[in-house]
Amino acid sequence: MLEVIDLPGKFSLFSELWHPKIVAELNDSYVKLVKLKGEFVWHRHEREDELFLVMKGSLVIKLRERDLVVGEGQCVIIPRGVEHLPVAVQEVHVVLLEPKSTLNTGDVHNERTADAEWL
Amino acid sequence: MLEVIDLPGKFSLFSELWHPKIVAELNDSYVKLVKLKGEFVWHRHEREDELFLVMKGSLVIKLRERDLVVGEGQCVIIPRGVEHLPVAVQEVHVVLLEPKSTLNTGDVHNERTADAEWL
Repeated sequence: MLEVIDLPGKFSLFSELWHPKIVAELNDSYVKLVKLKGEFVWHRHEREDELFLVMKGSLVIKLRERDLVVGEGQCVIIPRGVEHLPVAVQEVHVVLLEPKSTLNTGDVHNERTADAEWL
Repeated sequence: MLEVIDLPGKFSLFSELWHPKIVAELNDSYVKLVKLKGEFVWHRHEREDELFLVMKGSLVIKLRERDLVVGEGQCVIIPRGVEHLPVAVQEVHVVLLEPKSTLNTGDVHNERTADAEWL
């Protein structure tokens, strides 16, 4: 597992939207890649802070009181307990870093809920 | 603290080499930025896996048995216990993700040992 991970190359290996792919683990967390387009669901993670790093495109993360716009080379950490709604007008490529226990839809379980799998 | 972090913008705020700057925290970890040029010291982290993500330039991480070359947009995780020596021929900008307890020089204490500080 001690290998260099080429993020653009890894992104080129899949096209599925909204299904995080695990590419690495460290400590108690996974590094995941996800492609987003459209609107997700409002949710929160009760016990996990979640890092979004945008590698391509521009991601809007709606909070209840304001919107964040995260562009290429930018990141944001959504603290545990904070409701958020990711929205991608165009396709966005995002690196996620979050505890292994994190479910993509947090406290919500619906058709968008997906287990992350190793790429 | 819920703000978008522009990584290139943050890198433009300092020029000091080998002194990691904390830009965010999540769960039990810090996100740190560091500029590297030259050769560091062989060290290992007994209890912490460490993620290196190269944002600019090309980083060589020497291991005892081989060298890794980590280019822009690439990352690598050095597992706990693995001796490594970062080397940067030209200046390299690196995002680190590691537990809050991580010391830059790991098991070694010398003139390169530096506490990370918030940027």
